[in-house]
Amino acid sequence: MAAGPVGQKRMSDLVERLLAGERRALARVLTRVENGSAEGHALLAELFPRAGHAHIVGFTGSPGTGKSTLVSAVTRELRGRGKTVGIIAVDPTSPFSGGAVLGDRVRMGEHSGDGGVFIRSMASRGTLGGLARTTGDAVTVLDAAGFDYVLVETVGAGQSEVEIAKEAQTTIVVEAPGLGDEVQAIKAGLLEIADIFAVNKADAPQANQTALGLRMMLDIANTPYIWTPPIVKTIATRRQGVAELVDEMVRHRAFLEESGLLIERERARAAEELYRVVRRALYQRLREQVGERYEDYVSRIAARELDPYSAAKALIEHT
Amino acid sequence: MAAGPVGQKRMSDLVERLLAGERRALARVLTRVENGSAEGHALLAELFPRAGHAHIVGFTGSPGTGKSTLVSAVTRELRGRGKTVGIIAVDPTSPFSGGAVLGDRVRMGEHSGDGGVFIRSMASRGTLGGLARTTGDAVTVLDAAGFDYVLVETVGAGQSEVEIAKEAQTTIVVEAPGLGDEVQAIKAGLLEIADIFAVNKADAPQANQTALGLRMMLDIANTPYIWTPPIVKTIATRRQGVAELVDEMVRHRAFLEESGLLIERERARAAEELYRVVRRALYQRLREQVGERYEDYVSRIAARELDPYSAAKALIEHT
Repeated sequence: MAAGPVGQKRMSDLVERLLAGERRALARVLTRVENGSAEGHALLAELFPRAGHAHIVGFTGSPGTGKSTLVSAVTRELRGRGKTVGIIAVDPTSPFSGGAVLGDRVRMGEHSGDGGVFIRSMASRGTLGGLARTTGDAVTVLDAAGFDYVLVETVGAGQSEVEIAKEAQTTIVVEAPGLGDEVQAIKAGLLEIADIFAVNKADAPQANQTALGLRMMLDIANTPYIWTPPIVKTIATRRQGVAELVDEMVRHRAFLEESGLLIERERARAAEELYRVVRRALYQRLREQVGERYEDYVSRIAARELDPYSAAKALIEHT
Repeated sequence: MAAGPVGQKRMSDLVERLLAGERRALARVLTRVENGSAEGHALLAELFPRAGHAHIVGFTGSPGTGKSTLVSAVTRELRGRGKTVGIIAVDPTSPFSGGAVLGDRVRMGEHSGDGGVFIRSMASRGTLGGLARTTGDAVTVLDAAGFDYVLVETVGAGQSEVEIAKEAQTTIVVEAPGLGDEVQAIKAGLLEIADIFAVNKADAPQANQTALGLRMMLDIANTPYIWTPPIVKTIATRRQGVAELVDEMVRHRAFLEESGLLIERERARAAEELYRVVRRALYQRLREQVGERYEDYVSRIAARELDPYSAAKALIEHT
């Protein structure tokens, strides 16, 4: 492959191959970006201006709602409409029990051999708050790689998962009938991030009750929002309701564009990403500047000679 | 009440009243600490050297496992043993559906009027990563206030909830029989943080199977850890197994002390707290230094003229 024009803006070979549709190059870029290395940042800097075209759709919901199956059914529907699909699956599974790699293979199943689908699983365990950053960067990579849709699948019960969902332009909250009272409470927290509700396993006896409950909660919430989240009943295993769900996804994206909300959301996303990156970079610089003194402060806090706020103040004054 | 000695180390009136056991002063300090204001930090600086005596126990687990009931039963058992108990309940409920305040009242129920118990709920929604910081600070306050035990209750499916559990010296993972396969996967992620497993609702048919499954997973994990997490079967609603669970809590704390691991954990906790506070303070200082230029960078990222990493680099060079 010919090299790009010489100079500051010269494309790296890996990015060229990614843009040419080479899947191995894509996987390699994702790995480097996830590692958060300087090389990963350089790759992102190249890819960032090329992103911004995909429709980014988040799927979130409690365990047991059948999210993965629904994401797979939505992917099939989108493929039937001639669209390409990149999927980021945030997987709470621990590495030692199989983890993300096995997850990829299981999920691929139906879509293996389809060049229009690319799936990446990321284990959420042990990332210590870095997951949200990594997910946002992976979305940028898949977006720049030219996928029409980027689907982000997360477990929705936790705070960080809700934050990941914020990377999306359209957030689909997946519910299933009869998951108990405490889950209802969590649902309340998800009401405000949902653009669309999917009541999956709609063949279960309490499905209508669940849909009705959601409608009532939405009415009570009474948010001054010009989009009323539709509630779509689906049976992902039989692909029922999936075409309707995709129609609502498309309708929501058109709404975002026409209302000007898409620009607002993109700005909020930019602010969030800058916030994350800036905080990380500032911390790394401080650590380099103060060197071993940092550990002395940790010791003094552990010995309760000093509180963390006074320690932070003293450390920052050093710089 | 007489004022403390004049000078830099003079105790604030609020802290004096808190240390004298006044519950209203405690609630007020917690509110100020949660707000993260300069006054909150000053209060924490006063309280920090007085903390470090409580046994901090985290309870985490999926929705529907009966965690709240179990925490209540453990509290009753500890009270029966003459111990005082502070509880921090991280509540995923949204404010508009009742939220943390209602949660407090419901949970108080059994323990209302008991001066040896203090319960504080914190809504996890909308805190944007600030929850972990706030929880750690609230633990410090309750610890300094002299409670023998500080129990921290979280929903265990999410990354941030797992991080909150790290504030604890002893982490109890609560399971319930028959919560489905996807929950099993999450369980794997929790294996590594569990010091004790409670299989609650042990009267359910699959209880023995769940306990056996856990034991097998622990054997497979085969971590080179000198503490083997015990698995305690409980029926919180009938208070069965609760005395045994408390015995295991006490045994784990003794193990931490004897093995020297308690000092290691306290150091890890100190490092984690300093990390959070330092990052926040650095970011706030940068925002003050760069002023409105920060928003210009957000706009350029949103317009995809600049990637977040290059923007962060440029912003930091300004300072």
